[in-house]
Amino acid sequence: MSDFDLKIESAVASFLRNYHFEEKTIEKEFARTFDEQVEQKIEHTLLKSIATTSEIEKLCHEARQYGFRSVCVNPSFVSLADDLLTGTGVLVVTVVGFPLGATMTNCKEYETYQAMQNGANEVDMVIHQGRLRSKDYECVLHDIRKVVKAAGSNPVKVILETCNLTKEEIIAGCLLAIEAGAQYVKTSTGFGAMGAKAEDIDLMRHVVGKQIGVKASGGIKDRASALRMAAYGADLIGTSSGVAILKECKG
Amino acid sequence: MSDFDLKIESAVASFLRNYHFEEKTIEKEFARTFDEQVEQKIEHTLLKSIATTSEIEKLCHEARQYGFRSVCVNPSFVSLADDLLTGTGVLVVTVVGFPLGATMTNCKEYETYQAMQNGANEVDMVIHQGRLRSKDYECVLHDIRKVVKAAGSNPVKVILETCNLTKEEIIAGCLLAIEAGAQYVKTSTGFGAMGAKAEDIDLMRHVVGKQIGVKASGGIKDRASALRMAAYGADLIGTSSGVAILKECKG
Repeated sequence: MSDFDLKIESAVASFLRNYHFEEKTIEKEFARTFDEQVEQKIEHTLLKSIATTSEIEKLCHEARQYGFRSVCVNPSFVSLADDLLTGTGVLVVTVVGFPLGATMTNCKEYETYQAMQNGANEVDMVIHQGRLRSKDYECVLHDIRKVVKAAGSNPVKVILETCNLTKEEIIAGCLLAIEAGAQYVKTSTGFGAMGAKAEDIDLMRHVVGKQIGVKASGGIKDRASALRMAAYGADLIGTSSGVAILKECKG
Repeated sequence: MSDFDLKIESAVASFLRNYHFEEKTIEKEFARTFDEQVEQKIEHTLLKSIATTSEIEKLCHEARQYGFRSVCVNPSFVSLADDLLTGTGVLVVTVVGFPLGATMTNCKEYETYQAMQNGANEVDMVIHQGRLRSKDYECVLHDIRKVVKAAGSNPVKVILETCNLTKEEIIAGCLLAIEAGAQYVKTSTGFGAMGAKAEDIDLMRHVVGKQIGVKASGGIKDRASALRMAAYGADLIGTSSGVAILKECKG
């Protein structure tokens, strides 16, 4: 193991020693503010492989109509989303190395660069879980760093796919995301065995503190689960049920 | 719709009119030959996002030991597989735009080129299912063609993800793969809702005839299902249960 790998390993152990999960009570005031500002927390998402052009158009129209923070679409639909959303204040977010994270680093870099050229404002990249599990931290850091560099001034989120990882691996992923200059860590792709859990959000927030943001995603289908994620520290909610959640919050 | 799109639509209708599925009886002689040659039909596959370096090494050692046709690994492990398998006769197959097929065409092209540079002998690319379902056939053709061109003299397989498609869409996918110069059509990524079905293999073989090959993949875990796929027309079997299947065939 390199000095860097050892440094990360020791930091992981220290975070783990000083952490335990506690159930939270959600205060009324917190819930009221959440309901008021929910639009700007929602990333309106459609990443299914079978999504058609007209379904992406519908997604963009809804994002505009309801004032969501962003749409999140596959790279091949970034141009279309950009055409429909330029000047509306709705951001175009796309995904890189998605959903496995197991392609080559230079490919993630190229995909990021091309997505930006086509109008993407942010990219959600998938971490290399195999290298993370192999404790090859330098390799994981390099992979994220190249994407951050390709994104230039545009924010990068690092998807950990928490359902596949141990607590130690989640902590290491967060530390590497910060070190590489990413702006958010994100729980899930929505294609894994499970989506966001409050336990994962809480741990991620514990590690990143106020340094970077946390996005909850995967399986968030109603106000109760979105609010729960926010209460444990999620800044953003990635969901394909944005309209239903919004209506519940405002209804 | 363009002239090309109309031509494909009319060919799809004609193939569909002239096709119906019939259950087949598997002859003893066919099964005996299958058992004898099974190694060379198996693509020994590990595409899980959490696969570690040592699991990929094990896969390569097994492929060598049992004489499988190939290993199939994610792009980030192509270099490693190439290092371990050069000179053994075991091919290195990788995946492109995997498993959603929804990235940009120039990204699939770049990923193909880089994988070849790292030692890949073949690529299994995922078709753009959203464009296929939108009947945007020219776009789908262009997407495959760019990958075929980037692969140079190396074969390209086109993964249709049949569980997401209608019969019409499967037929169109096969016709576009042939037109674009691909060497195989392949049923599944292994990440969809369902893997290969005999009905899909039969239909794909009906459409491609002897022009190109057919690969069955996804959920093939024992000799019975592998043999069934072969009987309906599969030339190759993509599976992570290659060792178990081989032992059943030879045992």
